[in-house]
Amino acid sequence: MVGEHAVYNGKIILQSEAVVPVTQREIQSGFYVYESLRVIQAHPVHLEDHLLRLENSANLIHLDYPFSREEIGTWVHALIEVDLVEKASLRIQIYGGKQPQLFITTSEILTYPESFYSEGVKSLTYEGERLLPGAKTGNLLLNYLALEEARRNGCFEALLVDEEQKILEGTRSNFFAIKDGQLFTAQDEKVLLGITRDRVIKAAKLLGLQIRYEAPSLNKVVGGFYDELFISATSMAAMPISHVNGNIVGKAYTVTLEISSLVRQWELED
Amino acid sequence: MVGEHAVYNGKIILQSEAVVPVTQREIQSGFYVYESLRVIQAHPVHLEDHLLRLENSANLIHLDYPFSREEIGTWVHALIEVDLVEKASLRIQIYGGKQPQLFITTSEILTYPESFYSEGVKSLTYEGERLLPGAKTGNLLLNYLALEEARRNGCFEALLVDEEQKILEGTRSNFFAIKDGQLFTAQDEKVLLGITRDRVIKAAKLLGLQIRYEAPSLNKVVGGFYDELFISATSMAAMPISHVNGNIVGKAYTVTLEISSLVRQWELED
Repeated sequence: MVGEHAVYNGKIILQSEAVVPVTQREIQSGFYVYESLRVIQAHPVHLEDHLLRLENSANLIHLDYPFSREEIGTWVHALIEVDLVEKASLRIQIYGGKQPQLFITTSEILTYPESFYSEGVKSLTYEGERLLPGAKTGNLLLNYLALEEARRNGCFEALLVDEEQKILEGTRSNFFAIKDGQLFTAQDEKVLLGITRDRVIKAAKLLGLQIRYEAPSLNKVVGGFYDELFISATSMAAMPISHVNGNIVGKAYTVTLEISSLVRQWELED
Repeated sequence: MVGEHAVYNGKIILQSEAVVPVTQREIQSGFYVYESLRVIQAHPVHLEDHLLRLENSANLIHLDYPFSREEIGTWVHALIEVDLVEKASLRIQIYGGKQPQLFITTSEILTYPESFYSEGVKSLTYEGERLLPGAKTGNLLLNYLALEEARRNGCFEALLVDEEQKILEGTRSNFFAIKDGQLFTAQDEKVLLGITRDRVIKAAKLLGLQIRYEAPSLNKVVGGFYDELFISATSMAAMPISHVNGNIVGKAYTVTLEISSLVRQWELED
């Protein structure tokens, strides 16, 4: 059963025992790296990519841990087996410090209503840039606050806008815009290098789009300059955006949905 | 005994049971506010000020909790009594979310060798600004990384430098510079409003210094422009700085040590 067990430093434990002391400096400081992935048909989707990114995140913040990608991969499979997991969201999280602590936990798979894809989702913008955008760490308060602000306003996602008024990424997603056969997205070094973002770019190329690494400006986005806008994430694939800050920015999502469908097709293929 | 018990939502528990689940979004996101204070002669120093700041921090990040200042104050005293605490560092920490979780924990009091005050401490600078500087929250990765960098280089503290190359504050301290009878420090809205910072300013005024709310520039600091440089924090009072980025910046710390001594004198007076 999803969420019954967890892995702690290689050992299977009850997930209810996956806890950390509030007195430890690393816990208090969010000194951890993590990955979230999907389990589909008992298969951890793009596991190798996630394990690589986990290692990169750790290197970026000098977080040393004694677990190899192979070991962590074995533990992920062991957890899927012991809980007979068919479908789930799975999280790998490693706290740093003198005695690094690795947890693998599962929860009910995150899915969204079909209408989110057919009608698009609402979004708002939030000023702020993530610390070390390339690293997936516990430094998540900006993301948390921005997403809560979005939810209070009936929106699905908050888009983070930098000092130059460019939209870089969402709080838990990458951001894309399509215009005249071109796909726009922020430069690699400014955002989290999404595993799904990679697939989106691959799909867009297959569909004949030219890739432009330029973050769309807020002005152009709310002014209706782009043909389609969407966000991408493990749980979302490519999800179309209908509104930004109350402005209608999309109506038809043809290309977005083709990309989304390709991204989902590739989930069982690695 | 210090660290034997803790408070959880008003109840006395064993401190070893002061743990939180790694699966909870608020825990993962550092969505918490906190205060650290000193207990001296069984007296929680400047408790009322800390409880007020805790409330301010919570308001700044929309973290709602159902505990009043009076209640929290009572629990602090109860913990001091049950563990017969004479001297300690005491931490109040409240996680937000649907079911807010308040912890009060204690640890051995943080003190520093006398030589740190007579000889000053080494520091280095680190580029970065805290999110919502006025709030004391779990968004501490920048502070953690900067302090670790300092320690790897044999320094006691890292000083955070903003985009204009001004020194705003330390990773766990406020920053001050003295020159010709004037005390320089960053404007209130740019830094954490330290409880000890307040006392430092009060002490400086008593000693006849004029207060200038301007963050010292890195250039002037390493160029030796100032007479004395120091940092302040609950655990440090006023601690003189001898080096910044390998440059000798201080030798005599007369005024700093007078301020430090006044700050300590006032600890038992509220």
